[in-house]
Amino acid sequence: MNYQEIFIEVNKKLKSCKDDGTVASYIPELHKVSPSKFGVHMCTVTGENYGFGDSEEKFSIQSISKVLSLSMAFEIEKNQLWKRVGVEPSGNPFNSLVQLEYDAGIPRNPFINAGAIVIADILISKLKNPNIEFIDFVRKLSGNNEINYCERIAKSEKSKGHRNAALCNLMKSFGNIENNIHDVIEFYFDLCSIEMTCSELARTFLFLANYGVNPLDGEKIISSSKSKRINAVMQLCGLYDEAGEFSFKVGLPGKSGVGGGIAVVHPGKYSMVVWSPRLNKKGNSSKGLRFLEEFTSYTESSIF
Amino acid sequence: MNYQEIFIEVNKKLKSCKDDGTVASYIPELHKVSPSKFGVHMCTVTGENYGFGDSEEKFSIQSISKVLSLSMAFEIEKNQLWKRVGVEPSGNPFNSLVQLEYDAGIPRNPFINAGAIVIADILISKLKNPNIEFIDFVRKLSGNNEINYCERIAKSEKSKGHRNAALCNLMKSFGNIENNIHDVIEFYFDLCSIEMTCSELARTFLFLANYGVNPLDGEKIISSSKSKRINAVMQLCGLYDEAGEFSFKVGLPGKSGVGGGIAVVHPGKYSMVVWSPRLNKKGNSSKGLRFLEEFTSYTESSIF
Amino acid sequence: MNYQEIFIEVNKKLKSCKDDGTVASYIPELHKVSPSKFGVHMCTVTGENYGFGDSEEKFSIQSISKVLSLSMAFEIEKNQLWKRVGVEPSGNPFNSLVQLEYDAGIPRNPFINAGAIVIADILISKLKNPNIEFIDFVRKLSGNNEINYCERIAKSEKSKGHRNAALCNLMKSFGNIENNIHDVIEFYFDLCSIEMTCSELARTFLFLANYGVNPLDGEKIISSSKSKRINAVMQLCGLYDEAGEFSFKVGLPGKSGVGGGIAVVHPGKYSMVVWSPRLNKKGNSSKGLRFLEEFTSYTESSIF
Amino acid sequence: MNYQEIFIEVNKKLKSCKDDGTVASYIPELHKVSPSKFGVHMCTVTGENYGFGDSEEKFSIQSISKVLSLSMAFEIEKNQLWKRVGVEPSGNPFNSLVQLEYDAGIPRNPFINAGAIVIADILISKLKNPNIEFIDFVRKLSGNNEINYCERIAKSEKSKGHRNAALCNLMKSFGNIENNIHDVIEFYFDLCSIEMTCSELARTFLFLANYGVNPLDGEKIISSSKSKRINAVMQLCGLYDEAGEFSFKVGLPGKSGVGGGIAVVHPGKYSMVVWSPRLNKKGNSSKGLRFLEEFTSYTESSIF
Repeated sequence: MNYQEIFIEVNKKLKSCKDDGTVASYIPELHKVSPSKFGVHMCTVTGENYGFGDSEEKFSIQSISKVLSLSMAFEIEKNQLWKRVGVEPSGNPFNSLVQLEYDAGIPRNPFINAGAIVIADILISKLKNPNIEFIDFVRKLSGNNEINYCERIAKSEKSKGHRNAALCNLMKSFGNIENNIHDVIEFYFDLCSIEMTCSELARTFLFLANYGVNPLDGEKIISSSKSKRINAVMQLCGLYDEAGEFSFKVGLPGKSGVGGGIAVVHPGKYSMVVWSPRLNKKGNSSKGLRFLEEFTSYTESSIF
Repeated sequence: MNYQEIFIEVNKKLKSCKDDGTVASYIPELHKVSPSKFGVHMCTVTGENYGFGDSEEKFSIQSISKVLSLSMAFEIEKNQLWKRVGVEPSGNPFNSLVQLEYDAGIPRNPFINAGAIVIADILISKLKNPNIEFIDFVRKLSGNNEINYCERIAKSEKSKGHRNAALCNLMKSFGNIENNIHDVIEFYFDLCSIEMTCSELARTFLFLANYGVNPLDGEKIISSSKSKRINAVMQLCGLYDEAGEFSFKVGLPGKSGVGGGIAVVHPGKYSMVVWSPRLNKKGNSSKGLRFLEEFTSYTESSIF
Repeated sequence: MNYQEIFIEVNKKLKSCKDDGTVASYIPELHKVSPSKFGVHMCTVTGENYGFGDSEEKFSIQSISKVLSLSMAFEIEKNQLWKRVGVEPSGNPFNSLVQLEYDAGIPRNPFINAGAIVIADILISKLKNPNIEFIDFVRKLSGNNEINYCERIAKSEKSKGHRNAALCNLMKSFGNIENNIHDVIEFYFDLCSIEMTCSELARTFLFLANYGVNPLDGEKIISSSKSKRINAVMQLCGLYDEAGEFSFKVGLPGKSGVGGGIAVVHPGKYSMVVWSPRLNKKGNSSKGLRFLEEFTSYTESSIF
Repeated sequence: MNYQEIFIEVNKKLKSCKDDGTVASYIPELHKVSPSKFGVHMCTVTGENYGFGDSEEKFSIQSISKVLSLSMAFEIEKNQLWKRVGVEPSGNPFNSLVQLEYDAGIPRNPFINAGAIVIADILISKLKNPNIEFIDFVRKLSGNNEINYCERIAKSEKSKGHRNAALCNLMKSFGNIENNIHDVIEFYFDLCSIEMTCSELARTFLFLANYGVNPLDGEKIISSSKSKRINAVMQLCGLYDEAGEFSFKVGLPGKSGVGGGIAVVHPGKYSMVVWSPRLNKKGNSSKGLRFLEEFTSYTESSIF
């Protein structure tokens, strides 16, 4: 059976399960999405592509973009980056201020909101036109020049962004934010507002499945060592406080977003994106998790 | 011996102790004060006054003003007030976000920063000209129409106010702030910037030593029941996480500020203010605490 | 109206309120008590006595005995005592290990379980026959030589005492327990198992309403200063994490137990005990609290 | 270069670094070890062996045995096991009671002390002769029938085991310990007292590098799926609150012990054990970590 056929097989198995969970509702724009959407796309490092379901429909990638902003900032800042953000799992829900206060303004990792805000601050400090340069980076990786921020989503988030403003102010009080708080928060929400299809996003993540090099054109995006390290951080911190469960059941580095997407990479083999908008209590795609669990069991895919 | 003589006596005793601690340095304006200043003033409910040392010199009352804004808000909002702020000691340092997050945006009490910010928010919602009406309230209590906010202090605080902005944003995310964050924070810092002498401040607190009534002119400021309740909150929460120690050693309701002032009341007897700028590790006036401990031991003053 | 008549009046008012809450059920022995029991007894420092309802019926005083063991240990150890236990409110439920771990084995105050276990440890170290000497102390205060530990209650508690064993072991690991863990836990549970009537318990607490001296025979039990300090600790820590609410509404130092009793003192005036077995969510007598609130409002009793 | 030569090369590089950290001192027996010991041993799934330094000297494997007790309990209990212990990183130091209290007695993962105590409890419930059957399991895996518990070490630990007794009592209070506390703690300390050489321990871990099957004799120890899951748990939780750093820098699943050992596996390739007694502040072998970091960089070993 090829991957296409396996997608069909695994999807059949899931039919019997109830697709529980609820679509993210904290901003109206996310809530509009049809909850029954379901798409999968895989890109192999040898150039093959396998899609299933709504894999060519745009969705809001949300926190998945944190892997891309980290990649860009890590390449610029090198290991200096880790003076301002850790690599340890947080052990707390994704937006917690508790840990941040105990750790004197240093976020536990770059994938909790506080950490991603620090990454946004770094990009603002180091880039001339952060908004343009970042979207260009994503466009290049995805192979689609039309990829863009979604103004509606970003605006919707900004109107509800008091908690992220709290995080940013708290870190500023500890000296871990260099730029104007308003600018940092705006850029942070822009980063999270990008819309992509499963196939575009899978292609975007392909360099992390190929040790930092885009296998389609041979361009080195980041060093092999950095690629491995980003995957390690995804493995430990990519699914908020469900990272352990995900490693345990899926066994691949991955990153989720509240738009219902999950991107995973199997180093040396493939990148894959699943999308299903209903979220479980920990904020991860409910059907997406089950699909990945079944798929990796079926194919015996696991880095472990 | 009358109180004047006791002040002299107690002060002699303290001579032998080193005046340790350091003047608050987080804003430049507070740091300019001479660390050796020391003043005491007592007003009895029978109209007597006893001053000692630098008791007629202005200092920044800082958090002591939180008792006054609470008094005003409590009179306006009645028991509705306690839906938005608790009356329990915090068990954490005065600016902690931890407790606030666990308690879903409801501050433990009105004397930690978060609680005082909620009180400021209530006054903005309920008063036409909050800044003017509040200072008028203080002027009336103090008997001095010249009392005012200190713009320099307020400006200095505002430039460093990221942590309070974090608290305010966090509470807004939980729905416990009604007004614009900028306005609330500005008003909060104005409240804390008032400058008074020991004698002015002692007179201002006299109504709390007299069951809500100003004994000098018989005007009822708040009800007897509210006065007792404000004193109870001072007893349990007035000295941050040193409230227990203070109750244990001094045995009177009191409120401290990082300007080095401490106001106490002995219900039915007197109000008293001490001022000495050097602070201990918990942010309370070091010599002020020692003076009050010796004074209350000497006079066997205690509500217990 | 004398106090007797006021008791009747206040009790009428409470009739309209539902007596909610549930009898402590964690040990079978406590659960056997009839939930509708209600008793009050007051002893004034001038020797008057006022009883109401089931005030001559025995109940398990439970944690209220922590005030008595503290009194005994404070008199023996003097201020050395406070090196091993603090005087700050805990800000956490009464059996929490969290605070204890952060504070390296020093309990926040002598009324949370951990603190009372340290007090038990001190009494074991300092007394020849701790069990006998402690009950003698209580008998003398109560004026009843028949007062005793209740073996059934103590046994019942011991069979469920894993959490207290956890606390004791944790403190031992920090070096804050001197004696054998088994002995300390046994003695601790014995202390809590004492049974008394409202009138016996009110008489027992009378010395704390009279600055350390038993007003009936003039015997000095503890110094005036110590009496005030114990009252201060009761005020701040006597009702677990409802201490603020209690100070706010009742305004007197008090101590509660899960047997449904609450003892309060009005320094210079009276000691009073209420008993009603139904507990609110914080573990304090539900009707007892309401009675005290109404009674102190009615009589305008408050130390504030 | 073969692995042997790489060991020599990497060791040369480390010569320039100071071997900082301190030997575990909380029990006298561990403190007796010479701090300059250093050994490495690798077993490949193809049957090759590479040793270096003090690789044939016995050391106390301590917490590394938690992987072996987990393997045994997982095989017996199947997924029922995960009702009593989680798979999430703790985000707190290894012996913390804080998390345990918040999570109502369910340890975050089987490698923190509380989790390993639950595993010990499970083995006691399920095995006839837990001590004998467990050591037999280890003997079989290691290929050495002389492997044994070290009574001196176990006794030394037991005399200091108040904190683990606290953990065990706390879990018992939540109903998550089935057996007698004394028995559970005794067995837990026995498990941690085993002494092995680097080469014995590397061979013992070989089944986890070969998907559950001992490659030397083809015996299936646990299922492939279970093997992957144990490795996933090691990756996320194997080095206490340094797990993220370890994943980031070393990129292999591993487990450390306070005896200075670290066991790692590269699935499909090899198992490897390093031993150096000096520990860093997080309780992991200081030189061991540096060796593994250099070795995996040099050989580009990483599962990511």
